[in-house]
Amino acid sequence: MSVAFRCEKDLLGSLEVPGDAYYGIQTLRAVDNFRLTGVPLSHYPKFVIALAMVKQAAADANHQLGYLNDEKHQAITGACRKVIDGEFHDQFVVDMIQGGAGTSTNMNANEVIANIGLELMGHARGEYHYLHPNNDVNMAQSTNDAYPTAIRVGLLLGHHYLLDSLDNLAGALTDKGNEFSHVLKMGRTQLQDAVPMTLGQEFHAFANTLKEDLQHLNRMAPELLVEVNLGGTAIGTGINSDPEYQRIAVARLAEISGMPLRPALDLVEATSDMGAFVLISGMLKRLAVKLSKICNDLRLLSSGPRTGFNEINLPPRQPGSSIMPGKVNPVIPEAVNQVAFDIIGNDLAVTMAAEGGQLQLNVMEPLIAYRTFDSVRLLTRAMTMLEEHCIKGITANEERCLELVENSIGLITALNPWIGYDNATRIAREALTSGRGVLELVREEKLLDDDTLTDILRPANMIAPRLKPLRG
Amino acid sequence: MSVAFRCEKDLLGSLEVPGDAYYGIQTLRAVDNFRLTGVPLSHYPKFVIALAMVKQAAADANHQLGYLNDEKHQAITGACRKVIDGEFHDQFVVDMIQGGAGTSTNMNANEVIANIGLELMGHARGEYHYLHPNNDVNMAQSTNDAYPTAIRVGLLLGHHYLLDSLDNLAGALTDKGNEFSHVLKMGRTQLQDAVPMTLGQEFHAFANTLKEDLQHLNRMAPELLVEVNLGGTAIGTGINSDPEYQRIAVARLAEISGMPLRPALDLVEATSDMGAFVLISGMLKRLAVKLSKICNDLRLLSSGPRTGFNEINLPPRQPGSSIMPGKVNPVIPEAVNQVAFDIIGNDLAVTMAAEGGQLQLNVMEPLIAYRTFDSVRLLTRAMTMLEEHCIKGITANEERCLELVENSIGLITALNPWIGYDNATRIAREALTSGRGVLELVREEKLLDDDTLTDILRPANMIAPRLKPLRG
Amino acid sequence: MSVAFRCEKDLLGSLEVPGDAYYGIQTLRAVDNFRLTGVPLSHYPKFVIALAMVKQAAADANHQLGYLNDEKHQAITGACRKVIDGEFHDQFVVDMIQGGAGTSTNMNANEVIANIGLELMGHARGEYHYLHPNNDVNMAQSTNDAYPTAIRVGLLLGHHYLLDSLDNLAGALTDKGNEFSHVLKMGRTQLQDAVPMTLGQEFHAFANTLKEDLQHLNRMAPELLVEVNLGGTAIGTGINSDPEYQRIAVARLAEISGMPLRPALDLVEATSDMGAFVLISGMLKRLAVKLSKICNDLRLLSSGPRTGFNEINLPPRQPGSSIMPGKVNPVIPEAVNQVAFDIIGNDLAVTMAAEGGQLQLNVMEPLIAYRTFDSVRLLTRAMTMLEEHCIKGITANEERCLELVENSIGLITALNPWIGYDNATRIAREALTSGRGVLELVREEKLLDDDTLTDILRPANMIAPRLKPLRG
Amino acid sequence: MSVAFRCEKDLLGSLEVPGDAYYGIQTLRAVDNFRLTGVPLSHYPKFVIALAMVKQAAADANHQLGYLNDEKHQAITGACRKVIDGEFHDQFVVDMIQGGAGTSTNMNANEVIANIGLELMGHARGEYHYLHPNNDVNMAQSTNDAYPTAIRVGLLLGHHYLLDSLDNLAGALTDKGNEFSHVLKMGRTQLQDAVPMTLGQEFHAFANTLKEDLQHLNRMAPELLVEVNLGGTAIGTGINSDPEYQRIAVARLAEISGMPLRPALDLVEATSDMGAFVLISGMLKRLAVKLSKICNDLRLLSSGPRTGFNEINLPPRQPGSSIMPGKVNPVIPEAVNQVAFDIIGNDLAVTMAAEGGQLQLNVMEPLIAYRTFDSVRLLTRAMTMLEEHCIKGITANEERCLELVENSIGLITALNPWIGYDNATRIAREALTSGRGVLELVREEKLLDDDTLTDILRPANMIAPRLKPLRG
Repeated sequence: MSVAFRCEKDLLGSLEVPGDAYYGIQTLRAVDNFRLTGVPLSHYPKFVIALAMVKQAAADANHQLGYLNDEKHQAITGACRKVIDGEFHDQFVVDMIQGGAGTSTNMNANEVIANIGLELMGHARGEYHYLHPNNDVNMAQSTNDAYPTAIRVGLLLGHHYLLDSLDNLAGALTDKGNEFSHVLKMGRTQLQDAVPMTLGQEFHAFANTLKEDLQHLNRMAPELLVEVNLGGTAIGTGINSDPEYQRIAVARLAEISGMPLRPALDLVEATSDMGAFVLISGMLKRLAVKLSKICNDLRLLSSGPRTGFNEINLPPRQPGSSIMPGKVNPVIPEAVNQVAFDIIGNDLAVTMAAEGGQLQLNVMEPLIAYRTFDSVRLLTRAMTMLEEHCIKGITANEERCLELVENSIGLITALNPWIGYDNATRIAREALTSGRGVLELVREEKLLDDDTLTDILRPANMIAPRLKPLRG
Repeated sequence: MSVAFRCEKDLLGSLEVPGDAYYGIQTLRAVDNFRLTGVPLSHYPKFVIALAMVKQAAADANHQLGYLNDEKHQAITGACRKVIDGEFHDQFVVDMIQGGAGTSTNMNANEVIANIGLELMGHARGEYHYLHPNNDVNMAQSTNDAYPTAIRVGLLLGHHYLLDSLDNLAGALTDKGNEFSHVLKMGRTQLQDAVPMTLGQEFHAFANTLKEDLQHLNRMAPELLVEVNLGGTAIGTGINSDPEYQRIAVARLAEISGMPLRPALDLVEATSDMGAFVLISGMLKRLAVKLSKICNDLRLLSSGPRTGFNEINLPPRQPGSSIMPGKVNPVIPEAVNQVAFDIIGNDLAVTMAAEGGQLQLNVMEPLIAYRTFDSVRLLTRAMTMLEEHCIKGITANEERCLELVENSIGLITALNPWIGYDNATRIAREALTSGRGVLELVREEKLLDDDTLTDILRPANMIAPRLKPLRG
Repeated sequence: MSVAFRCEKDLLGSLEVPGDAYYGIQTLRAVDNFRLTGVPLSHYPKFVIALAMVKQAAADANHQLGYLNDEKHQAITGACRKVIDGEFHDQFVVDMIQGGAGTSTNMNANEVIANIGLELMGHARGEYHYLHPNNDVNMAQSTNDAYPTAIRVGLLLGHHYLLDSLDNLAGALTDKGNEFSHVLKMGRTQLQDAVPMTLGQEFHAFANTLKEDLQHLNRMAPELLVEVNLGGTAIGTGINSDPEYQRIAVARLAEISGMPLRPALDLVEATSDMGAFVLISGMLKRLAVKLSKICNDLRLLSSGPRTGFNEINLPPRQPGSSIMPGKVNPVIPEAVNQVAFDIIGNDLAVTMAAEGGQLQLNVMEPLIAYRTFDSVRLLTRAMTMLEEHCIKGITANEERCLELVENSIGLITALNPWIGYDNATRIAREALTSGRGVLELVREEKLLDDDTLTDILRPANMIAPRLKPLRG
Repeated sequence: MSVAFRCEKDLLGSLEVPGDAYYGIQTLRAVDNFRLTGVPLSHYPKFVIALAMVKQAAADANHQLGYLNDEKHQAITGACRKVIDGEFHDQFVVDMIQGGAGTSTNMNANEVIANIGLELMGHARGEYHYLHPNNDVNMAQSTNDAYPTAIRVGLLLGHHYLLDSLDNLAGALTDKGNEFSHVLKMGRTQLQDAVPMTLGQEFHAFANTLKEDLQHLNRMAPELLVEVNLGGTAIGTGINSDPEYQRIAVARLAEISGMPLRPALDLVEATSDMGAFVLISGMLKRLAVKLSKICNDLRLLSSGPRTGFNEINLPPRQPGSSIMPGKVNPVIPEAVNQVAFDIIGNDLAVTMAAEGGQLQLNVMEPLIAYRTFDSVRLLTRAMTMLEEHCIKGITANEERCLELVENSIGLITALNPWIGYDNATRIAREALTSGRGVLELVREEKLLDDDTLTDILRPANMIAPRLKPLRG
């Protein structure tokens, strides 16, 4: 029969820890201190896994260097493996926002791993003289190197989900670009009729702008994250650590995580610098901005059905109104817009947190971790939602698109090189005043013969530079 | 025995709803559509309660006007009461970020209330011909008036918690201001020695700057929130509503919520305008900025113990370091700083969402609701944390404070009117070069007799305008 | 004949000041130190005038208290008057962004006023033994009270221009609201056809949302600015100042500026707190958000002419395209959007600057002043531009608006109470599929007789709650 | 004798242009339309030069393809050369913020170049039948390709100034890092005493964090900017352009500007996408954040002289206070902080402008150009200021640094591996309570012999991993 509570002690005194908890007194203090967001560490499983990987790597290095005996090493290894495999995540209970530059997160990990390890060794939870959260699990580490290293590894572990989601979305847009390659429509600049293009060109542009970000995120984000400061201990000077420790620990972490990690060149710099997160957040923000622009366009293009542009139809996802029968709304792009704004807000929080670092440490790291993990997840999910619930089901109103082209004043631009800017301007004005079509007026005035007109208005000649040069 | 699923239908087809769910098909669609933040409506109980209050008020008005019969009215009333009393909150499952301008939130409320009502009437969930989510619960409402009204009421319901937390914090700072009123210390401008003050003055300034916000938030936030657009239906024109409906519904809502609500003057304007939220968020941001500044100061003043200012001690809340014995960190102010940055990020998200409104509606309202409720809660909790876990336990290092005053170059400023700017500057320089004290040098040069010096340096004469004018 | 240079000295040594300059050595150092924005103080005349008013008020108080003799007082008075009247503004040359918490701005004012005063006394510039920038012009002041006081007075002096511009804009929108009160059009929510309204209601909503801000800015901004910390000297304790000084100086400044200034209650708090600017900037941001939303709407409503909404015409202001004949763009609203984004950026800079204050002073005040003056000016000008170059010339395409109403699916909503939600939904779908009108289908199915239909579709019955309740 | 005015005509009518102006009617309309910032195009000479380069490249391509005759080509070439050489910049008078997506900027360039060209041809200004702003100077261009191309080229032209300034600053910090490599001091985390390091390590960390940005900006910014959309004309489809035009024009622009420009792959995408600017602005923001953090540190480290950290001295740049004799303030870092906040504000404006693009164009480009040019210039100047006026003159207070180390509690960390965590914690507490030094207490208790103690406390053993492993 298990006891309800066990007593644990630390620098500040003793507390009763729930008997079935794998975390210990320092975690408990942190839970009590920081009742803020209600979002615990376990909300971000990749982060929890990364913490266990760091603990494993450190234990391996300490074992190899002879500081940690076989028994303890085995216990820590077993415990870390379980956490990496997804067990015990509910024991990571500290709030994502916390003071102490992540000490509470680090101690939450140390305590949980120690107690799982103790159990594996056949001891009771809390019998830390057999396996100690600080002395053994945290050996040769400081929060100041272990915590930011775990953030980086955690982001790397989740990175391919982001890339996949982005890749799939870009792919779906490319498919639509191909599907709509024959749909002639009017391009609009400044929301005013401009010149013809195809709906395919429009969707390919969406796809291509995202592919640029795929390329950047694929190449640059990892580059920014693979430099870790593990081994720098308290302030990057590596005080009290074995001269061989850093090399071994980082190499082990690379193996365990499968990521090409390498030691930061200047550990003092790396301990306090949050530049990598600022740039990554900036890249996420850029992607959010692009998604928001695309969704604004989708909402414009599908506006209507009768009083808007009505060039495309978004797949209906849910009834749009309890009061207006038959109304279906562009709910998916609308949700993406909001995600984008949220990510832009996150970027600001990250920026301010990065600016708030002082001297040898940035104590605002927990907020940076929180908001960056949040942005990555939101973006990943929002792009999958956009792809699956919206893009794939988009259809074109081809006739409407064509009708708008034929009606448009902007068609006159294509005639410009033949009839001259003055004639073109005059006819544009007349069309506007009379409500008639520009082609009708051109024909009426016999400004161009029908063959030429047909040639000019051939879509292939309007949506790209003309193959045959125009010379007077 | 309960069934595993029941079948429900809407405009888009039919779906299987879990048999024990009080929500229905539209909620289910929304849950499926918007897997984004993982934060459901139930995370903000005041918002859920406010939704039920709006439904109650509408039902009362509809009943009074003869559109809703007694039986249905009683069922809705019973259901709303339960939600207001805190029951069934787990049935509010839609993600806080959603497309559709809150339609999914509104339908979640409609469906839950209908099904609770059905149960009260002795019918099974889903038997909507007895009590319909749209026709009955949502009668005379549009999401576009019910949803923003609920946001406002929800914020009003939580407002006094924010005010209490702020009031208590300001009170604790005032108490410290009184406690430290005799502690003489150096004031610093630009982080450079300036002139003497008391630690009491410093803490009273903290208290007073917060009291200004208490006053603003107490007066202005309600003023911004009490105008509701209930009754405007789809776009503020009140289409299809009874001419008496708005007046009665708003009056009932005021009674039910206990808030002095009144109808917005221009309902078309009120339907799309998010200005109230922008200003409230701006006021929360201002408070966050002030809290962050205070916490920065607390961290500076408690820096050390040996290599910093060390004028005050923050109460230790948790061990500060696993590698550095005896280190205790200012974890509470650090957490408040991060909360402040998060709120500033929220304010940006709210701003962009408000700017993103188009024509007769702002579809970004769900993000505005999400981020505003989040800011209010974070601020409330952070201030309580700061008060209880930090401010109340602060102690002063009086001797250290006094020693810094006596050692300071800045003391020379007080002597300025007696010995002249030139002498003062010369002695300041000499003190800096030699490392000696300014008073020592003044005495040595016999620039002032001891009585005058004693009088000048009397704290009461340095920390306020001198009572006796200086002349001649 | 004037000399090319004169030699001046300060704490750090001596420099050659241009012989014809009214500023002196400290201004020169600041110009050399801060070559940043290229925007000098003189770019904001109201700020320069406010600085002179503060100097005048201090001189008056010092004179009255007997610290400044008649001759010096007269000289300072004469100099201040000239600056207040708009002379010598080109002598305010320091960059708006500067270190030193405004010391360079304060010294620029002190030096210019001293040298003008010297000239009035018949002395040469630089003969400071007759009238000294620090000892006389800056007597009883610190930058830390004089500078923020001048910012507040400067903003107050410009405030009514902002209000006038806003009032005129709201007035022009109201005029258009009246002019368009008979133009029936479709309202749109989520860019989808909703229900009918008038174009007049739409423009009145624009006007009314701005009038709310007019009210707030009219009442609250002054309230936030009238509390000044003049008399607090270095850190708010009023060290070295005469006990009567503050009262007299603030009263004089109120008279000179014509503003109802009063002393801040807690001068220590007032010296470092930037909360008033954060809130004012937040209010300017809110106004910017509203203007941006209005301009987005104007651009949508005027989109076309053939492929957009085309409900209104903006007055053409300049040719729109060199390549597309006849194209006219909504350049004025587009410029307002950009101004709005700039102001939102300014608000962030102000926020961060406010957060960056430390202990007894906020050294980021110059940025706060710079960005706030900039926002006020940009908003003022943008609103005047919008009113004069755009709103006043807007015309409505009445026929187009009506045609869209008649064609719209959304019309079905008005029939809802008569034909029921199920019929309405079915007909809406059929209309969408077939491309036919909803009224046509209702007539065909004889769901309503012509009289009822005519009554329902009477504009007055669609754009407001029906006068006759629907029962039955 | 020159005439006072000349009459010019456009689509909207005719206006009187000042007789001596090189700009024409469209520029005049824009000046009248957009009285906003008061900052004209000429404020950014690199941008003006880039516009002329684009015009030159287009003219070369048009000439080579046979559309522009020799005489006109020579005139345009001569005019562009003059502008590139810095002449006539005062004729670029349009406000940086403008509607029309840059049309007014483009036309300002077209008109000025046409009129200079006319003069070179021996004609009077305004005689556009000899050389036309639209038909000749703007031939084959749209604002929508010429304008963003000029922004990119303009940023590239200024880029090496930014890099030089950053390189010099990093160099100066490295120099100080070397100069201070022997100065032992306490590191601080969370503003609390941590463990020893050298002042050299601290300054090298400053240098290294900036060198990372140097590397990024050196490599990535150009990569983002070299893809231009010249040749896409109105919406990227290249309508009306010769199929050879794009290739030749971009190649010529690369030659003229000396930049490795290449055509964007998807011109439709490139016409509306602002992603490159968002990312560049994000990189500038990151640099601003780092500079702000460094300046915050410099201000902390130089705080005092008596009541602060006082580890370093910043060179005095100007007297710090009129009321406090001898006070010298860290004015240069303070100004850099403000510049950083301003740039973060600019980044937000750029972000919102980028998000505000619609369909085939982003009409907010002028704001993006304005704020990006502004950020680059401010950063460049601020870094030069910081290097020259501050970093180079910094000196260390070696004795003070050493004294703080010897006094510090944090020293106990280095003894940890020898005396154990328990002893260390106990002694840390005793030192704090008694005010005595930790070494003194260790000696008193004879916990370590003097040789060991001396070895442990050897700086080389405390500021890096120990060369000799510690084993039991």
